[in-house]
Amino acid sequence: MSNTSNANAKLYGLLLAGEFAACYRLIDESAMAPTTADRVAIARLIAAEMAHFEELAVEVSAAGGDPDDAVASHTKVFDDYHRATTPSSWHEALVKMYIGDGLAADFYTELADRMPADVQGVVKSVMGSTGSSRFAVDRVRAAIAADPAVRSPLTLWGRRLLGEAITHMQWVLAEEDDVMDLLFSGDGSLATAASFFDGIAARHGERMADLGLA
Amino acid sequence: MSNTSNANAKLYGLLLAGEFAACYRLIDESAMAPTTADRVAIARLIAAEMAHFEELAVEVSAAGGDPDDAVASHTKVFDDYHRATTPSSWHEALVKMYIGDGLAADFYTELADRMPADVQGVVKSVMGSTGSSRFAVDRVRAAIAADPAVRSPLTLWGRRLLGEAITHMQWVLAEEDDVMDLLFSGDGSLATAASFFDGIAARHGERMADLGLA
Repeated sequence: MSNTSNANAKLYGLLLAGEFAACYRLIDESAMAPTTADRVAIARLIAAEMAHFEELAVEVSAAGGDPDDAVASHTKVFDDYHRATTPSSWHEALVKMYIGDGLAADFYTELADRMPADVQGVVKSVMGSTGSSRFAVDRVRAAIAADPAVRSPLTLWGRRLLGEAITHMQWVLAEEDDVMDLLFSGDGSLATAASFFDGIAARHGERMADLGLA
Repeated sequence: MSNTSNANAKLYGLLLAGEFAACYRLIDESAMAPTTADRVAIARLIAAEMAHFEELAVEVSAAGGDPDDAVASHTKVFDDYHRATTPSSWHEALVKMYIGDGLAADFYTELADRMPADVQGVVKSVMGSTGSSRFAVDRVRAAIAADPAVRSPLTLWGRRLLGEAITHMQWVLAEEDDVMDLLFSGDGSLATAASFFDGIAARHGERMADLGLA
């Protein structure tokens, strides 16, 4: 296996572990859904994450990796993120779905922009349908309209999600030297890493506004 | 809406509620999965159930019904079945996945055989990929090989699943007069209902043998 295909297998494996963790986060948080319609919406999100998972599992295998091993080897860092951001209410769970999906999509986009063209195609296809958690936007905006007092604590919660996500994204990247090399090859400077996370933070602000959070 | 399309909407709604319940049963039981590979397998089963759910939701709408209402109106009977058959171990969960999926598929097949041709096409397509729970067969056979003492309690468990399934299938059918009429039209005798469940019981025996259970 060449160094590049090795790095590709690791990158895909990392994304695969992320999809798997997102899927199980939804499975855990589905218990909070208050209505049948909400439970249906969550089950659809789980299915959408699994469709991404399947796409990535094919790529992991094609690049010479093993999907189960890839998931198992990254379980800890993703579990840590989800443990650090366990919602205490259904509204917090909704904000996390929208903000978390968005942050993951941005993370993938920023990665894709630094990747060889073939890898970009896969990453962009996998991210293609992450808009499915927009249902959370309607629910959160309705909750704020019904009770404006929920806005301030949910805003703090959204800010905390960004902080935890960036911290854990750095840990994820630190676990894989090959992926880091692929990402920041020929540069690897702190400035490049900073611009990587600056782009993510800027788009986070737009999503907070989508939710009606200041 | 004609009587036939009304009955179709109700039948599809019933199948939809069944898929939804199966999906949430897997979500609940996924917490028992002991390894990452098992958790991946369960997430794949959830995604497969949701694909059936989406197919049926389209049909419910096309027949003039509302998917969310259909799920909500049948939640109780499916929840009752799953509450009556809550596994107490991962092996029981595996047996339930294989036996339960099989019983549901048989229930659908028996329904389809009594349906107009257009309805049969939908039902058979939805059942097409229920074989995904065969992964349970390998796990259960391996468990019996490792410890033959698990066979006898799992055999009793499998028998109990059949009994509960048939009881609850009858309750499901009793909830929908229109579906009953569609099913046993021009007959509706007890003999027809008995042959309906005899076919299901016969195939149950084959599946118990697949699992290595007497």
